[in-house]
Amino acid sequence: MAETNLQVLLRRRPVGAPTPEDFEIVETPPPAPGEGEVLVRARYLSLDPYMRGRMSDAPSYAKPVAIGAVMEGRTAGEVVASRDPRFKPGDLVAGGYGWQRYSAVSGERLIKVDEAEAPLSAWLGVLGMPGLTAWVGLEDIGQPKPGETVVVSAASGAVGQVAGQIARIRGCKVIGIAGGPAKCDFVVRELGLDACLDHRGDLPAQLDAACPEGIDVYWENVGGPVQAAVFPRLRDFARMVMCGMIAQYNEAPGADAAGAPPGPNLGPVVRKRLRIQGFIVSDTGWPRYPRFRAEMLGWMREGRMKWREDVVEGLRNAPAAFIGLLKGQNFGKLVVKVD
Amino acid sequence: MAETNLQVLLRRRPVGAPTPEDFEIVETPPPAPGEGEVLVRARYLSLDPYMRGRMSDAPSYAKPVAIGAVMEGRTAGEVVASRDPRFKPGDLVAGGYGWQRYSAVSGERLIKVDEAEAPLSAWLGVLGMPGLTAWVGLEDIGQPKPGETVVVSAASGAVGQVAGQIARIRGCKVIGIAGGPAKCDFVVRELGLDACLDHRGDLPAQLDAACPEGIDVYWENVGGPVQAAVFPRLRDFARMVMCGMIAQYNEAPGADAAGAPPGPNLGPVVRKRLRIQGFIVSDTGWPRYPRFRAEMLGWMREGRMKWREDVVEGLRNAPAAFIGLLKGQNFGKLVVKVD
Repeated sequence: MAETNLQVLLRRRPVGAPTPEDFEIVETPPPAPGEGEVLVRARYLSLDPYMRGRMSDAPSYAKPVAIGAVMEGRTAGEVVASRDPRFKPGDLVAGGYGWQRYSAVSGERLIKVDEAEAPLSAWLGVLGMPGLTAWVGLEDIGQPKPGETVVVSAASGAVGQVAGQIARIRGCKVIGIAGGPAKCDFVVRELGLDACLDHRGDLPAQLDAACPEGIDVYWENVGGPVQAAVFPRLRDFARMVMCGMIAQYNEAPGADAAGAPPGPNLGPVVRKRLRIQGFIVSDTGWPRYPRFRAEMLGWMREGRMKWREDVVEGLRNAPAAFIGLLKGQNFGKLVVKVD
Repeated sequence: MAETNLQVLLRRRPVGAPTPEDFEIVETPPPAPGEGEVLVRARYLSLDPYMRGRMSDAPSYAKPVAIGAVMEGRTAGEVVASRDPRFKPGDLVAGGYGWQRYSAVSGERLIKVDEAEAPLSAWLGVLGMPGLTAWVGLEDIGQPKPGETVVVSAASGAVGQVAGQIARIRGCKVIGIAGGPAKCDFVVRELGLDACLDHRGDLPAQLDAACPEGIDVYWENVGGPVQAAVFPRLRDFARMVMCGMIAQYNEAPGADAAGAPPGPNLGPVVRKRLRIQGFIVSDTGWPRYPRFRAEMLGWMREGRMKWREDVVEGLRNAPAAFIGLLKGQNFGKLVVKVD
């Protein structure tokens, strides 16, 4: 390789919100692909809230990133060398690994992508893990029926923007929740949701006005006061799709949620026959990717699926962008354009 | 009728724990059955925790008992007159209505029972609504697999004793939780569960010792500190079968659980992919009654299903017995022998 690899490593485990000092940026030689591996030159890196969990060694569903190792992430880019016969130099792929310019990964984890169908970065968002997450969570847990009322938190974010639009396509009344007028405006005007509530305002009163009939499906991305406002407004037989609780990732990154504030009293779960269920897309989602991809590309061709990206220039800016993501400072799916 | 009807009415809505003054006992003429109705002379009345909800006018899944109306309940007894061709005087039935000696009910809600298969009172317990509740909740939500660890709260109670034994029959390791050494002894020696923990002791430490591998299914009957001890010990993909939370029925009888203490932070629901789901047996249970009955009678014939009843003599003692039920003073399925 003419170029060096550029990598963002985990320097130490953050306590509370990550800081720039928790990361280390290094230049190294590009890796050599082993048998069955493909060397990918990243063009885009996806930044997602789950990465906060990987920075912690609290119990979770996946192993933490080791101190001194490259930060976990998913990239889209170009094949520059291949020891897997299914890929050749110049192929565009999603599924490269890590916050880095070059990664050598098993061909098994790569998806060949087509820029004629969607821009390269979209294969990390609406056509990538976040889009698949929205699709799988609604298929397995939310199960929205026509005419039901669906509330989506973080509605302008990577997963939320897809979840809300799918629920609209399924014939539901869909109310988004987002932070600030610009995001709310986008959710209604661009994504076409029925309304969007600013959680910085009086959310309980806004929910009462927007969904006087109550809520059948709640897509949970955030936790905290938003969850507390939604929970008592769930209707009989409502489903809570527990995708994430970003509001507490810095304080309680582990599965035991030690140090986290209490949650709702569960009495209504019995009397309203609620279903509160968590899921992780990597458990069962990827085998369904072909079906998801076909349906999503269909919606995109019909103009029924919009998306917004927040593109940060340069891998050296990834730590600051990720720190902002945990504070809700991004607007749309956050990706890094890898230089 | 030669005999008068004896009825227990709701005199006023209790605030907190019910008191004897919340009930009124009256003598009235027996009702006359209408077209399609059957007049049932109760021999046994089932007393169950859900009745606390019916005494309150807080929002719930069923309408409250009106002030001055007979308390809701299910009886087993003898047909004394019938205007439904499927029933004749002398038939034994379950499904009579209310805390009363005589009820005229639609033949649709009656089940013909056979004392040769099981004693009359058992058709209100192990073969009645509580038994069906245990069976349905495990079929729909708990879905215990062989080798999994199942924890059942209120393990000596009407629903708990059946749920625990079914889980054993399904090949699980089953740990009961009950109040006091006599109940715990019964759960292990008679019901055959693997262990039973006294919630009056140090429950977290006992759970760690009894289920060092964690908990796959939790049958929730109680809420409160027992739930708080179990929740952090749930394993990945665990199911919480939300059947009841008797610990707070007096303080927060309504669906909104106003005034109830907070519950667990829901962060682990995402990371452990937990499923927390409530159900009410009357939603979908009764159409499955024939299948349940056949399976349960099979287990009883094979000696694999035990049960214990707490029989209170005389309808006038029903209020005191019910007040005690909410305090956990009963030992086994609580029924009133109707005089």
